Amino acid sequence: MKSFFYPENVVVIGVSEKPTNMGQMIVQNLIRGGFPGQVHAVGPSGGVIMGRPIRKSVKDIIFPLDLAVIMTPAVTIPLLMRECGEAGIRRIVIESAGFSEFSDDRKGLEQELLDVAKEFDIRFVGPNCIGVLNMENGLLTPFVPLEGNPIPGTVSVLSQSGGVALSYMDYLRFEALHSNKVTSMGNKLNVDESDLLEYLVNEDKGTEIICMYLEGFSNATRLMQIARQSRKPIILHKSGIGKSGAAMAASHTAALASDDKVVDAALAQAGIIRVRSTAQMMNYVRIFKLPPMKGRSLAIVSRSGGHGVIAADTAELNGFVLPPFPKEELARIREHVRGGIINLQNPMDLGDLFDLSIYEDVAQMILSNSQIDGMILVHTYGEAESEESHHLIKIIKELSEKHGKPVALCLMVDDQERAYLKQNFDFPIFKTPEYAANALKASRKLYMYRQKQIDFIPFEKQIDMDAAQQIVDKAVKKNRNPSQAECFDILKLYGLPVPAYQWVQSKAEAVTAATEIGMPIVLKVDVPAIIHKSDVGGVVLNLKTPEAVGAAFDALENKLHDLMGPADRFAALVMEQVVVDGKEVILGVNQDETFGPTLLFGLGGVFAEFLKDVSLRVVPLNRNEVMGMIQEVKGFKALTGARGQKPVDLDVLADNLLSLAQLARDFTQIKEIDLNPVLVNYEGAWVLDVRFLL
Amino acid sequence: MKSFFYPENVVVIGVSEKPTNMGQMIVQNLIRGGFPGQVHAVGPSGGVIMGRPIRKSVKDIIFPLDLAVIMTPAVTIPLLMRECGEAGIRRIVIESAGFSEFSDDRKGLEQELLDVAKEFDIRFVGPNCIGVLNMENGLLTPFVPLEGNPIPGTVSVLSQSGGVALSYMDYLRFEALHSNKVTSMGNKLNVDESDLLEYLVNEDKGTEIICMYLEGFSNATRLMQIARQSRKPIILHKSGIGKSGAAMAASHTAALASDDKVVDAALAQAGIIRVRSTAQMMNYVRIFKLPPMKGRSLAIVSRSGGHGVIAADTAELNGFVLPPFPKEELARIREHVRGGIINLQNPMDLGDLFDLSIYEDVAQMILSNSQIDGMILVHTYGEAESEESHHLIKIIKELSEKHGKPVALCLMVDDQERAYLKQNFDFPIFKTPEYAANALKASRKLYMYRQKQIDFIPFEKQIDMDAAQQIVDKAVKKNRNPSQAECFDILKLYGLPVPAYQWVQSKAEAVTAATEIGMPIVLKVDVPAIIHKSDVGGVVLNLKTPEAVGAAFDALENKLHDLMGPADRFAALVMEQVVVDGKEVILGVNQDETFGPTLLFGLGGVFAEFLKDVSLRVVPLNRNEVMGMIQEVKGFKALTGARGQKPVDLDVLADNLLSLAQLARDFTQIKEIDLNPVLVNYEGAWVLDVRFLL
Repeated sequence: MKSFFYPENVVVIGVSEKPTNMGQMIVQNLIRGGFPGQVHAVGPSGGVIMGRPIRKSVKDIIFPLDLAVIMTPAVTIPLLMRECGEAGIRRIVIESAGFSEFSDDRKGLEQELLDVAKEFDIRFVGPNCIGVLNMENGLLTPFVPLEGNPIPGTVSVLSQSGGVALSYMDYLRFEALHSNKVTSMGNKLNVDESDLLEYLVNEDKGTEIICMYLEGFSNATRLMQIARQSRKPIILHKSGIGKSGAAMAASHTAALASDDKVVDAALAQAGIIRVRSTAQMMNYVRIFKLPPMKGRSLAIVSRSGGHGVIAADTAELNGFVLPPFPKEELARIREHVRGGIINLQNPMDLGDLFDLSIYEDVAQMILSNSQIDGMILVHTYGEAESEESHHLIKIIKELSEKHGKPVALCLMVDDQERAYLKQNFDFPIFKTPEYAANALKASRKLYMYRQKQIDFIPFEKQIDMDAAQQIVDKAVKKNRNPSQAECFDILKLYGLPVPAYQWVQSKAEAVTAATEIGMPIVLKVDVPAIIHKSDVGGVVLNLKTPEAVGAAFDALENKLHDLMGPADRFAALVMEQVVVDGKEVILGVNQDETFGPTLLFGLGGVFAEFLKDVSLRVVPLNRNEVMGMIQEVKGFKALTGARGQKPVDLDVLADNLLSLAQLARDFTQIKEIDLNPVLVNYEGAWVLDVRFLL
Repeated sequence: MKSFFYPENVVVIGVSEKPTNMGQMIVQNLIRGGFPGQVHAVGPSGGVIMGRPIRKSVKDIIFPLDLAVIMTPAVTIPLLMRECGEAGIRRIVIESAGFSEFSDDRKGLEQELLDVAKEFDIRFVGPNCIGVLNMENGLLTPFVPLEGNPIPGTVSVLSQSGGVALSYMDYLRFEALHSNKVTSMGNKLNVDESDLLEYLVNEDKGTEIICMYLEGFSNATRLMQIARQSRKPIILHKSGIGKSGAAMAASHTAALASDDKVVDAALAQAGIIRVRSTAQMMNYVRIFKLPPMKGRSLAIVSRSGGHGVIAADTAELNGFVLPPFPKEELARIREHVRGGIINLQNPMDLGDLFDLSIYEDVAQMILSNSQIDGMILVHTYGEAESEESHHLIKIIKELSEKHGKPVALCLMVDDQERAYLKQNFDFPIFKTPEYAANALKASRKLYMYRQKQIDFIPFEKQIDMDAAQQIVDKAVKKNRNPSQAECFDILKLYGLPVPAYQWVQSKAEAVTAATEIGMPIVLKVDVPAIIHKSDVGGVVLNLKTPEAVGAAFDALENKLHDLMGPADRFAALVMEQVVVDGKEVILGVNQDETFGPTLLFGLGGVFAEFLKDVSLRVVPLNRNEVMGMIQEVKGFKALTGARGQKPVDLDVLADNLLSLAQLARDFTQIKEIDLNPVLVNYEGAWVLDVRFLL
């Protein structure tokens, strides 16, 4: 990827002398941006642009060429790419639109691009993008005019949308945060977000923070793997969550929308900070310029009581606590405070102080206190105090660095002063205490993620994979879902706790099985075509005698024949009736189109029925993550021994979820797995019903 | 209140020649602000300030005086107020701190202020505030230096905190929205938010929008009454919701924090828009400058596909739908669009258009469409297009006014251009689509509130209040809570559905009662000292024979004597055992310290136990609001006939809640009422258990 950002030279293809020509703008941007290498221009009409000849073809350029930028009608591109390939170019940026984002019948054209790329070992960005930018060397390839000179910062941008890429760049510039490398990825036909992220995370020295905007994922599993290892904060705005948004995203860059809850879970597992707006994105960039917020203890200092109250409120809403300050320290501060009218506590209201040096003392006291993890300082001033306030900001910056703790500085000043501060202080300034607290929460979240992040532990149980494979293959071959007995067989192979059961095809077998298992038993229809057994009355509980079992078998068989005709071979499951007290939970798997196997956990009963109270995680996952998903559901307290009951054995529950996760990884052809209900209590767990859909 | 804002003249008390004197600053602000009336200065040391003599006392001023502003040490104020009273002054602003917000032992001093005020019929604002401002006449009374000249706008501010009042003023000024009247209310000892709000809502012509910041309510019931009738939008930031925030709020302005969920419910009932941050406050001020959003149908137009997707996402998260545009209209637009590369839909991506007049056509098409209620327009431009863009803004403003529909204009431009726009266009500009969508939601919410707002209908049932009063009086007199039988008696008087019951004091009475009511019956201990009957095994269900009833009575009596000694007179309740199928719900009342009687509704079982899934409303309330509270709980679906059950009779449930609300209003000495559980189904409701706490 590095050669996209640091080419020796660039050839722009699609340049003419016409004033509305977009290729022209690319050449202008490169030259005005101060790109130090050669910039060549190619276009069929020839001519001259900014003193350079426009060659009719790349073949007419005798120098070795490094990077091509193409902005010509879509249909012309395969041939132009081929010419590039023959001229030895291995990196291309295709900005032209008119591919799959425009119409499905352009998929063939996209395939041509891929074929040429393969033939010549070319990597290309786009199509349907505004290109690649590197502020370090002035490599500016967009076809729209850019404002301002490139000033390299430490924030790199990967965006599916060109418009959003430009506005991130603009916002970063307005905030004097500045971008480093910016890529508009467009349709991501060849180079995708994972390719670029891997480069920015692992190789690129100029990048310290990564901002991403995506409408769909190209290879979500790879993206997660890269992010999990990243030491650089990754902030992502993933859009396209609503219906209309998804419709436009599809037409815009042919994005594949995935279920938003799965996206949330997967990003959290990968340590990617998700934002919902551009404002939040910029706010988080600010906080990641500061040392991390390592704990929950926050100090708040403000010049107005009201702002202190607002800051304290919002800090608590974001999960922080405000410990009291040590009395002896406060006594020292109090000496400086006129009249003693103000209560020194946390939040601290320094009131109508005129000597700003007290702020320095206070900040020193707070940041050197090992009980405090970070600070919000709300300050407001007019012109008369601007010099003193600028000095204060300098000191605060030094103290924050010295103690390795974040100080979120909220300055309530006018636009002009704010602009001055942005340009002259390399220290982030937050708009309001609400933004500051929310950003500190993100900082802490990422810090915590990295602290507790552990590797996956290989699955320990020995599974007879061949036996499981045979069962699945049999169902696949017959083009049906596995029977309940087959599901239970597979669950048993994976060590999941299944009550005793036998698969029977006759009344006699049923009675024998019931006797062997021991009554009472449950009798269930077990014909793969019937997915919702209860709906057809296909489950009979609490059968206590051989006679009852026999009668129930006959009744079920007759009912099924009434329903499906006599041709269907009837079979049933005789199962031990579990008579322990416990809570009903649901364990499930869904093969997500984007993220692959996804694990689901929830409580049964009203929790599932009315509240959709479930948690999700993408597989693979470790025990920590499984415990997290159990604790995340709203009804979790119902498992911890409310009303004098013994708490459920969470370790057993976690084991079962991990086993199910392994099954989901091993057999991705099983699209859905429902273990519903699973009964759990302090002694163990029992899978009472199961369903696999292929 | 008008005389606070439009005095003929002002006397500032507490002025000296010392450079650090704060009274001096008040005089300066008044004169620099251009206040047209006389400005007098009073201070014990005399001297001259800005060419004016500093009189030693108000008694030395021979002119009739209108408004006094006092900024002297707290202890001096009662005497100074008395002098003001004797000099005929009836309006005073007390800015000094050092009252109950500083220490509880200053409550006496506050009482002195109230006493003097009463004696002379004085109304006063404060203490512990920064005063009263009116931008129309330059009445600027803060003791801190103010920046900029007063430019009167249409937004008035009521703030408990002086610092927050100043920052609202500043933010409004930065946004070129401008304030009209600003009051820092401080400890609200005499004049409170209701006094001021009533004036701004009903009398003051200059005020169109009201921004409030409160840490506690002085008279919440009155505030709600005023707000309910207001035609001017009221936006409130109520803080002090967390623990630390409340602690500081208490020290800051002696605020009384009330349960935040009740606050939420009460404000919604009063049509007050609650915000959680200053940024949100300013965002909502912007939207209320536009025509209201009357429906759910929104159009989105942007210049970049990505921003359109983001806007559509956020619109849907805020409850809007994006209907498609009519085909024939689109065809007309399409003629203008180059190449036809862009899909015209909703959200509409106008892409790299160079002719901005198409935006006008599109806006005209959208706003004249009766299916569309409002529009978000995302636009971005550089210097080259600024003139065309300014013209576009002008047209958009005209179209919005003409069609009476809001257009939330999101402009992504740099700080300098933003500042230019603020100063030169009287049309709100939103920062991002997220802010715009959130603001439109608030606009729609207020519009809907006003549409469906109906008056309270007087309670129709005839209640034998005397009988109920006697029962309550008896319990009060004996200093105990009402017995369960007494509670049921009162519920019956209010028409609540109570099963048959009899209060019994002997085994024989119990058996007779059971026979009269008809078995099976429930037997319950009914001794007021025992609040949690079930915990002591005080409830026996399903007694089917006279013998069983007798035995159970004996057992309960013995158990109670073991528990409480034989001295206590034993009594029990014999109650019909309700054997219908139904859902368990909870109806409750709490007498809130701030808002008075508060009604609670929730589902029983896990909903109450683990999810705290309840809704609240402040009494009085109408049937609409009761229906709203039933529908608001997460488990509502469980009442509407899930799983093939018949839906619960919601009308009966609403009737019962209204009856309970009336009871809560009539007997505020009953601090808590629990009807738990109440059984409800398609046929009716049955109160199975009840508890009153006095």
